[in-house]
Amino acid sequence: MTPLPYVHGYSPRESERLSDQAQTLADLLHRDEVFPPGARVLEPGCGTGAQTVLLAGNNPRAHFLSVDHSAESLERARRAVAHAGLSNVTFEQADVYRLPFPTGAFDAVFVCFLLEHLAEPAAALAELRRMLRPGGAITVIEGDHGSAYFHPDSALARRAIQCQIDLQKEAHGNALIGRQLYPLLRAAGFGRVEVAPRVVYADASRPAMVEGFTRNTFTAMVAGIEETVLRTGRMNAADWRQAIADLERTAGPDGVFNYTFFKARAVREA
Amino acid sequence: MTPLPYVHGYSPRESERLSDQAQTLADLLHRDEVFPPGARVLEPGCGTGAQTVLLAGNNPRAHFLSVDHSAESLERARRAVAHAGLSNVTFEQADVYRLPFPTGAFDAVFVCFLLEHLAEPAAALAELRRMLRPGGAITVIEGDHGSAYFHPDSALARRAIQCQIDLQKEAHGNALIGRQLYPLLRAAGFGRVEVAPRVVYADASRPAMVEGFTRNTFTAMVAGIEETVLRTGRMNAADWRQAIADLERTAGPDGVFNYTFFKARAVREA
Repeated sequence: MTPLPYVHGYSPRESERLSDQAQTLADLLHRDEVFPPGARVLEPGCGTGAQTVLLAGNNPRAHFLSVDHSAESLERARRAVAHAGLSNVTFEQADVYRLPFPTGAFDAVFVCFLLEHLAEPAAALAELRRMLRPGGAITVIEGDHGSAYFHPDSALARRAIQCQIDLQKEAHGNALIGRQLYPLLRAAGFGRVEVAPRVVYADASRPAMVEGFTRNTFTAMVAGIEETVLRTGRMNAADWRQAIADLERTAGPDGVFNYTFFKARAVREA
Repeated sequence: MTPLPYVHGYSPRESERLSDQAQTLADLLHRDEVFPPGARVLEPGCGTGAQTVLLAGNNPRAHFLSVDHSAESLERARRAVAHAGLSNVTFEQADVYRLPFPTGAFDAVFVCFLLEHLAEPAAALAELRRMLRPGGAITVIEGDHGSAYFHPDSALARRAIQCQIDLQKEAHGNALIGRQLYPLLRAAGFGRVEVAPRVVYADASRPAMVEGFTRNTFTAMVAGIEETVLRTGRMNAADWRQAIADLERTAGPDGVFNYTFFKARAVREA
């Protein structure tokens, strides 16, 4: 399967955004991710290693095999892991739909912000289930851009977010996948599926979340598609500027921003 | 101030819906609401007493003064409290904008699903702040219909929800008020404002939540405006039926429903 274009791009600024995002969301999404000593953990779609560094650092006695289809991302991930002084991660270039590892080779699979970019998330989950030993568990973390709402509300800001959703759909991804984790995991044959929302709520009483999420993660992500939106005429330049200004205003003293990630856990029962 | 029409109506079916809602949400919203023995608690907008019974039952040594502008609702609330064998609640008919009690007469104020129906929530909060002694705390719980999203997604179901939002707005209410609690409480002069989302997530692994919330609370609430929607031509009958069927489908085996309430706590500092 030919890798599809990554909607967020591969710029240094995007890499910085991903790193900000990983730091801000580490507590919310990853702190409770514990693998037993000796566990063999597969991390497909590791990208530039933002999550890998956190996971491997928190679980120094587990062994991670982190794969991605992009050699360039893998090279950055290798550097990030080395920079963090971690030696419990192996990297390999591979296709998530056809993984070159033996059936049942892993005790756990960890998937974060990957399914949203795949044309066939159900097929990927079936392949990941094949990688697990019976009794092994998968963790899946995805966002859902339809969960974003804010104060002051803004029709233009909502249009800009819809542009992001539409672009991701054109790239055969799904920016609304968070709400679908339960049926997707059930359909892929997993048992004991448990999904829990992980909610970002940011107002002025939580300045780190306002800065780290509202401004540097979500607004930065939307701002990152400006060139594509203007070039393809989805919005005109004046509306776009106002939309981004309106998103920035939700990080102001009276602003409120809401977003929900979904964290699922499921088991290969046999 | 003349009381405005209550968007949900006063039918026996609506009373049953409110009771279902209170039971389902008791753990999520009210279980952690603890008042010290002897505390004088004001509950404005008590309605038919669905929340009053839970609060007064959980805090048998606190004293509740529960007020509403509707004599009929108060009569029902009196019966509900008597039926529950509670003797720590006094009821009084009053206007939340001009409460007939001395300044600083209360240790705590509890507001649930009231501000969404008020034309001037900021004025009501200022009056409620006046009721508190210095150091007294207010709890505010409100929903936000803009936080509802679901799988399978449905443009018609979203239109039906928008009808509810529009009708509430026409009745000078605000069905999107949950996200605004932080700026509203700050503007009313409260200090130490802390807002936290309380999230409903319902999939087939949580059958009580599917039944109690997706079906009997949210879908029942939207279904309750059918007559008004059809009479005013907001949607035609076929679209409306499909919208409700689509909402009901989110309670099916592959369905997922999300909704967020907001619970705020703030203090009258001086």
